[in-house]
Amino acid sequence: MRQIKEVIRQMIPITEKELETFVSFCEKKRHKKKEIISSSYTRTSHTLFVNRGMLRFFLIDLKGKEHTTHFSMENEFTGDYSSLLSNKPSIYTIQALEDIELVSIPLAAIQWGYENIKFGDRLGRLIAESYFLFMDHRISDNYVKSTKERYEMITRIYPDIHNRAPQHMIASYLGITPVHLSRLKRKR
Amino acid sequence: MRQIKEVIRQMIPITEKELETFVSFCEKKRHKKKEIISSSYTRTSHTLFVNRGMLRFFLIDLKGKEHTTHFSMENEFTGDYSSLLSNKPSIYTIQALEDIELVSIPLAAIQWGYENIKFGDRLGRLIAESYFLFMDHRISDNYVKSTKERYEMITRIYPDIHNRAPQHMIASYLGITPVHLSRLKRKR
Repeated sequence: MRQIKEVIRQMIPITEKELETFVSFCEKKRHKKKEIISSSYTRTSHTLFVNRGMLRFFLIDLKGKEHTTHFSMENEFTGDYSSLLSNKPSIYTIQALEDIELVSIPLAAIQWGYENIKFGDRLGRLIAESYFLFMDHRISDNYVKSTKERYEMITRIYPDIHNRAPQHMIASYLGITPVHLSRLKRKR
Repeated sequence: MRQIKEVIRQMIPITEKELETFVSFCEKKRHKKKEIISSSYTRTSHTLFVNRGMLRFFLIDLKGKEHTTHFSMENEFTGDYSSLLSNKPSIYTIQALEDIELVSIPLAAIQWGYENIKFGDRLGRLIAESYFLFMDHRISDNYVKSTKERYEMITRIYPDIHNRAPQHMIASYLGITPVHLSRLKRKR
């Protein structure tokens, strides 16, 4: 639990005792490359932190077409926060793109943290704010950024992504065809 | 400041003294119907709460086309939270759709609240979470909900919207033509 502790310490002032109790609720999980970590139509009872590896979120649209909506990498909090907050079934499937090690953080740990960690709500606020910022850019960038700019942005946020994720998933994330994506990569 | 106090009291336990000091930073603002409340390309130094009236957010895409991305009504916290959090110029313009009364909450009040209101971070967390949920649905609903379902959802969230906002803005929000929107309304 070294990594998650370090990331939390960077976000809020926290005592070792608070941190130890918090991580005692959590569990390490390993998944093989391509394995489904959680499926759509199920309720989410935990959030995740990535120790090692990369994952993606995808959903299936009304026409049955798959869309990659999100990637997560090392040292990120991730998971279907929307399903967790609303206690509704998830519409996303989460899949390992590499052999992956996660920390599974149950809702009970989060709730314990809000009540018992002095800056627990601050940690939750900072994570919610970063999720919000990500989503807001996902929406507005489609209007105000060119495909080239969005390609450069994903390359900056996830420097390794072109070696770690299949090209058709990156293309799906950007809402372009794989052919368009290879053209952008060649131009670079 | 009665309304904003009442909404905050419903969200967190708060003393009258905390609440009074918080609202003493805030300012009431009035705008006439159609007036621009804040423009894109400016930095945001405050967030808003709606006392009375309705507003919309819009942005201009790369081709110069206007898109309504968001509406806000009475008793809602609103504003360009993204620009405020990231300290970057806003890409949204906020416009009054009716004569409107707002509470302007400066960043200094928010920061004071995080440091001095016992559950200030919790209030921030709950607001950030509700913003996040809204954005997450904005993205995923486009894939997994039909236009009819999204029309019914906006009608449920904002029961009065069809009398209060021009139809072409509602159509823009839903990403459909005004003709398609009137067809949906007739079918209802």
